[in-house]
Amino acid sequence: MSTQGNAVIGQSGGPTNVINQSLVGVIQNLKLNPAIGKLLGTRHGVRGIVNNDYIELNNTPHELLERIARTPSSALGSTRDKPDAAYCEKILANFKQNNVRYFFYIGGNDSADTARIVQEMGAKTGYQMQVFHIPKTIDNDLRVHDHTPGYGSAAKFVASAFIGDDFDNKSLPGIKVNVVMGRHAGYLTAASALARKYDNDGPHLIYVPEKPISEDDFLADVDRVFTKLGRCVIAASEGLTAPDGKTYAEHMAENVEKDSHGNIQLSGTGALGDYLAGLITEKLGKARGKKLRVRADTFGYLQRSFAGCISETDASEARLVGKKAVEYSLDPKNVEGSVCMTRKPGTGYEIQIHLESIKNVAREAKHMPDEFLTGNDVTQKFIDYARPLVGELPPVGSFSELKK
Amino acid sequence: MSTQGNAVIGQSGGPTNVINQSLVGVIQNLKLNPAIGKLLGTRHGVRGIVNNDYIELNNTPHELLERIARTPSSALGSTRDKPDAAYCEKILANFKQNNVRYFFYIGGNDSADTARIVQEMGAKTGYQMQVFHIPKTIDNDLRVHDHTPGYGSAAKFVASAFIGDDFDNKSLPGIKVNVVMGRHAGYLTAASALARKYDNDGPHLIYVPEKPISEDDFLADVDRVFTKLGRCVIAASEGLTAPDGKTYAEHMAENVEKDSHGNIQLSGTGALGDYLAGLITEKLGKARGKKLRVRADTFGYLQRSFAGCISETDASEARLVGKKAVEYSLDPKNVEGSVCMTRKPGTGYEIQIHLESIKNVAREAKHMPDEFLTGNDVTQKFIDYARPLVGELPPVGSFSELKK
Repeated sequence: MSTQGNAVIGQSGGPTNVINQSLVGVIQNLKLNPAIGKLLGTRHGVRGIVNNDYIELNNTPHELLERIARTPSSALGSTRDKPDAAYCEKILANFKQNNVRYFFYIGGNDSADTARIVQEMGAKTGYQMQVFHIPKTIDNDLRVHDHTPGYGSAAKFVASAFIGDDFDNKSLPGIKVNVVMGRHAGYLTAASALARKYDNDGPHLIYVPEKPISEDDFLADVDRVFTKLGRCVIAASEGLTAPDGKTYAEHMAENVEKDSHGNIQLSGTGALGDYLAGLITEKLGKARGKKLRVRADTFGYLQRSFAGCISETDASEARLVGKKAVEYSLDPKNVEGSVCMTRKPGTGYEIQIHLESIKNVAREAKHMPDEFLTGNDVTQKFIDYARPLVGELPPVGSFSELKK
Repeated sequence: MSTQGNAVIGQSGGPTNVINQSLVGVIQNLKLNPAIGKLLGTRHGVRGIVNNDYIELNNTPHELLERIARTPSSALGSTRDKPDAAYCEKILANFKQNNVRYFFYIGGNDSADTARIVQEMGAKTGYQMQVFHIPKTIDNDLRVHDHTPGYGSAAKFVASAFIGDDFDNKSLPGIKVNVVMGRHAGYLTAASALARKYDNDGPHLIYVPEKPISEDDFLADVDRVFTKLGRCVIAASEGLTAPDGKTYAEHMAENVEKDSHGNIQLSGTGALGDYLAGLITEKLGKARGKKLRVRADTFGYLQRSFAGCISETDASEARLVGKKAVEYSLDPKNVEGSVCMTRKPGTGYEIQIHLESIKNVAREAKHMPDEFLTGNDVTQKFIDYARPLVGELPPVGSFSELKK
């Protein structure tokens, strides 16, 4: 029998477009576990716990829940706090005070680890508690997990943006740099490849953190594509990395400091895109002796929060992992775990779910495997991997089909 | 009777998400005018005419047309060429050579004027031709027209972006600057106001080119909102203007030259957003003696081309003005005109269409009227004006509803 008590649910880290689906999945499945009394939603993750800032969620009306499920970002608020031992003690103290025996934490790898530490601290003092990590991250960088809720919708945003932007670039040809989120893992940038439909469709070059590139090689790539097609669409991760292992952003920061140009930010800015566009304008423009049409966009926060851009696959999986967390809470032996999706071997796309120990998920991030990357592009294997995750993409047409 | 002959159709200027709807409207209504023989689609607008680069569109399959109609950007290609008299002579020569008696040109105010000039040149030499301007622009800045196809879908993008970004900002509070397209007219930036649903929803500050603002007043606005709400979401036009009448971008360009920092671009870059974010970080952060969380996004080209973000109202109106252009071509007295939507007076939203002389549309742009603007915000009158144009917006929900 599970321990009778209350439950806390929280959301942590960068929000996604389906993180509320997981929240709603837990709330809607709550009655499955009669040992759970009150479900307390903590405002702004762990911060709400230490501040005892909760809202009771048990009786949220169904209609409102369904609307919240489709609303971007974290309905309970999020936090970037990374609790140390003293912080975790406060969390545990609050849990004891509120007789919290279940903790559902929706977040990335750091959030998972916090939940596990609190559970272990409790166990040492004989306080029984079960903690469940419900995965989310647009970066898709959790180990063990085949993919992570939040990635599919963000990938759909990136693919839809590149579909439109590549048609824009065909219409008014030039060189276009699009900077995509992803400091360490290139999954989201790689999703730009899903935009392609016709021969010579962009993105023509894809740069991820896993494949360092020098400025000279980058320029040579752009020059080659532009010479062939008269245009070039580029997808670059914000974590674009130079051959010395430092990111372009780090190099820029060093130069900024050296030149004392003031307070240029490198996060939540267009700095990297502008730098790459400037590089192309200056170096390739000079070499060709003419002004090139070079533009840069940085997709920024829209990737994780643009209202209405939701992969239906992603939404239903995010709901499912929330529901499953409650299911796992029925077994008192499940003292901790991350709700983990893997792909059923065989043909087609079907997922299976198991509970994975949090220590196999926490802290370290996953990078793209070699089999998904080739030079400045992704492989067909990556396309096959990612395509089912983004759901429906807008169908497009072109007069080029007439020639066939 | 209209003159028997061929027709040319072209697309010009910055693409939109529904400019192909107008193209398809013309193609699908073509049989209405039996005087029209071949319909020639010119590649990249006027440039395709002088290069005699056409594709014949009469027999494009229906299924392909419907897909093209929902495809972002200009399916025939676009151009930024602004023809002078010699260029217009070449256009006319090509038209005579191909017995082109109808010219449908989908574009903004400059494109309209080009079409009219060619028609007048033809008339002077006794060459009969009818030219029709089919409006498009995301800037919504055509005179006479109540609104312009392309605006509604771009406005839907901006509103959807602000819906998501404001929830993101509630979740992880801070100061967020979003830069929206619009060099001279603030309509698209103003559409950010459509994102609001609950009390204290963002955008909290809206800056359009029509309302110049000093840096000090801007900072005072941000400070006031941030003090009250602990967060602040800002919508700023790329044409943000200082009290001296120069845009911020112009001021930045001057400073860039003065400091010889090199080749910073001010179009298709994140420079303005980064500048405003830097200003807030430095000035308000210093005054408060702490680090503020300040971020900037520049929505960039996604606003006009993001695949799948289409206002159904906008799409059907764009189709309609294309169809209407063919209808107007039936009357040989209509030697030139812009297909113009106005709003039927009275309750509800209903449009009526008439043919307006191109000279009343061409060249000069429309600005937002005073009745749509108040200080650093829009009026309810603007909301009532813009809301029907963007069609359905994603429904959202919040736990704040529980308190009611």
